[in-house]
Amino acid sequence: MQRSQVVDAYTAPLQLPARIFDRWLAVRLQRAIAPAAVRLELWDGSSPYSIDTSPIGSVLVLDRAALIGLIIDPDLWFGDAYMAGRLEIRGDLGTVVEALTRATLGPPTWRERVRGALERPNSLGHARCNVQHHYDLGNEFYQQWLDEDLVYTCAYFEDPQMTLEAAQHAKFDLVCRKLRLQPGESVVEAGCGWGALALYMARKYGVHVKAFNVSHEQLAYARDRAKHEGMTNRVDFIDDDYRNVHGEYDAFVSVGMLEHVGLHHYHSLSEVLRRVVRRTGGRGLLHFIGRDAPRPLNAWTRRRIFPGAYAPSLAEVATRVLAPSGMSIVDVENLRLHYARTLAHWRARFGNAEEQIRARYGANFERAWQLYLAGSQAAFSTGWMQLFQVVFVPLESAPLYWTRAEMYAANNAQL
Amino acid sequence: MQRSQVVDAYTAPLQLPARIFDRWLAVRLQRAIAPAAVRLELWDGSSPYSIDTSPIGSVLVLDRAALIGLIIDPDLWFGDAYMAGRLEIRGDLGTVVEALTRATLGPPTWRERVRGALERPNSLGHARCNVQHHYDLGNEFYQQWLDEDLVYTCAYFEDPQMTLEAAQHAKFDLVCRKLRLQPGESVVEAGCGWGALALYMARKYGVHVKAFNVSHEQLAYARDRAKHEGMTNRVDFIDDDYRNVHGEYDAFVSVGMLEHVGLHHYHSLSEVLRRVVRRTGGRGLLHFIGRDAPRPLNAWTRRRIFPGAYAPSLAEVATRVLAPSGMSIVDVENLRLHYARTLAHWRARFGNAEEQIRARYGANFERAWQLYLAGSQAAFSTGWMQLFQVVFVPLESAPLYWTRAEMYAANNAQL
Repeated sequence: MQRSQVVDAYTAPLQLPARIFDRWLAVRLQRAIAPAAVRLELWDGSSPYSIDTSPIGSVLVLDRAALIGLIIDPDLWFGDAYMAGRLEIRGDLGTVVEALTRATLGPPTWRERVRGALERPNSLGHARCNVQHHYDLGNEFYQQWLDEDLVYTCAYFEDPQMTLEAAQHAKFDLVCRKLRLQPGESVVEAGCGWGALALYMARKYGVHVKAFNVSHEQLAYARDRAKHEGMTNRVDFIDDDYRNVHGEYDAFVSVGMLEHVGLHHYHSLSEVLRRVVRRTGGRGLLHFIGRDAPRPLNAWTRRRIFPGAYAPSLAEVATRVLAPSGMSIVDVENLRLHYARTLAHWRARFGNAEEQIRARYGANFERAWQLYLAGSQAAFSTGWMQLFQVVFVPLESAPLYWTRAEMYAANNAQL
Repeated sequence: MQRSQVVDAYTAPLQLPARIFDRWLAVRLQRAIAPAAVRLELWDGSSPYSIDTSPIGSVLVLDRAALIGLIIDPDLWFGDAYMAGRLEIRGDLGTVVEALTRATLGPPTWRERVRGALERPNSLGHARCNVQHHYDLGNEFYQQWLDEDLVYTCAYFEDPQMTLEAAQHAKFDLVCRKLRLQPGESVVEAGCGWGALALYMARKYGVHVKAFNVSHEQLAYARDRAKHEGMTNRVDFIDDDYRNVHGEYDAFVSVGMLEHVGLHHYHSLSEVLRRVVRRTGGRGLLHFIGRDAPRPLNAWTRRRIFPGAYAPSLAEVATRVLAPSGMSIVDVENLRLHYARTLAHWRARFGNAEEQIRARYGANFERAWQLYLAGSQAAFSTGWMQLFQVVFVPLESAPLYWTRAEMYAANNAQL
């Protein structure tokens, strides 16, 4: 309802008929998305759609500039035009976006290659700035659609029907079990978000945690929570970059931070691992959004949602982060379908809060986030993006489990 | 007893005292292995060993050429001198070799780099020749120290105390469960050895298997066994290179073959995967000896035991085999400690049969194999070598399990 009012505001002044050139472009575009069975429609209602099957939805392009933009640089323009209300989607947003994603799976385009080559390194200052762009949108914003613990990473639906809250706890527990945490051990967490994992590890596994983050709002929230829960003697939230981690720890953990590190800085992360993970008996876990093969993140997501973000291939992490720090990979799990389900939960909650979000942040912002969440769900459900959990140990240490069956035999939380 | 007689034959004519130059070389060598607490001793009984702790064993160098060889090219000379009885080990062979391995863990030397750069590709004919060098030594040889099914790859000791036979079956079952094989499905196996896995998959999981191998003796044995077990309608043993696999299959499996493929031919394996694994619902498993970072196999092993062999890093397999074939990695497990235990079993059986083996194949051969098995056990127990099981699916397919807990919940053999 509300969305179509937004659209009407844009469509009203543009009821000029499409010209031959517009129709020619539309045919090209319709062909490019043919396997999706999504109907392309121009601002005057005309459409080159002529596929036998009935369409699962429509993409409505509302002006000529948007149409040309979609031909020249679809990665960027699809999102920007949707955000601005110059492109509308008829039918279920999630279904249409997933169909378009599946239809356009393929090797990197020349645009992606050029963008990849032009990527800028994240300096310490730049990293802080990028993270603040995204995470300092305000805790209130994330509280409207994340779980009650504010966990903004892939959950683990141990039971497919469990709640998002339970699935985030199940993820924490999986991470702790994979790391085989023991009471009294020391853990360093790089990129701790709102602190839920750090607090969980301390509370349920009895470890001491140093948790690093560069987002002020998140840290303030995490510190309040630690105080409120009486965990300040066990969890230390530190306002600093992961590159400044010092000391030696039994375990290193990082959930959803690697995406923000940027390929150019993997050597720094590698040095951190070499420095801080105890060589005998130490271990670490990296949980990150990854790819089957190297390619830059979608250009629009990178511009509007996550500046400086990069989802690496497993090989890039193995070669640039783990091998130079003398680490052996002992376990890798791909949880991409769990991320698709996590995103479905977030989208449902976001949908319930969309009016408040629109009122507070504006229609463009609300539309951008709806698209970003739908696009992310589609990326994980189609296999376009992966979610890797990688467990590693220093060369001098042994794998943590004799068989993985032990990891699943029972919940081995200590407290 | 017998071994010291062999040694005596070499030591007898060489009781000349070591000169200053020899002692200077010995000091250098002793320093290089200092962390091992292994005593170096020259042919006249002299030793530069002066470490406080009592040594766990000794390396006895029996002539000057061997001493110089150990300085110039230890990777090659240690094995060759031991094989020829020009170097002797006092104390437990396994313990001393493991200590020496641990003491010399480190980044690749310039020799290794040069050898890596000079590696020759395996042509189809060359591959056949390399494989025959090793595997056509005679079934009788392997029957003396492998399990009754002649499985010459890492076992899976589901229970650490189980027999080698049971652990090989547990490995087969783990592979079948990871691939989630269903009755009636088609499986292609690249490099099937003596056929035990192919027969197990067909018998226990009701699948149809095409199993490829280029070793005549192994194939003859496997075919006999299929006939004897009445499985010829379910398992087809094919005398051909994996590069000639055609058709489309539900699952691809290869256990212990990748090591013989050689880096230069990963693109061919990648093409095979792209061609033969069904894009929707298909999946594959590679089980191989790997490394944390690329480096050539030990020079002596490559020269005397496994010509043409190469143990890749996980990143090399991901980048050169899986990514180009459009595969997503869904699961990786490092079973290196299981290989160390497998080798301990093999060594015990080999030890029991050493007299027969020496009588049949000669003392040099028997010593070479004792060293090779001890060195391999040390490599896996120290983390010098890894054993990876990698499960992958075509980009278009989903991970096979919602959670890995299902994989371990119960034995899901179908028949």
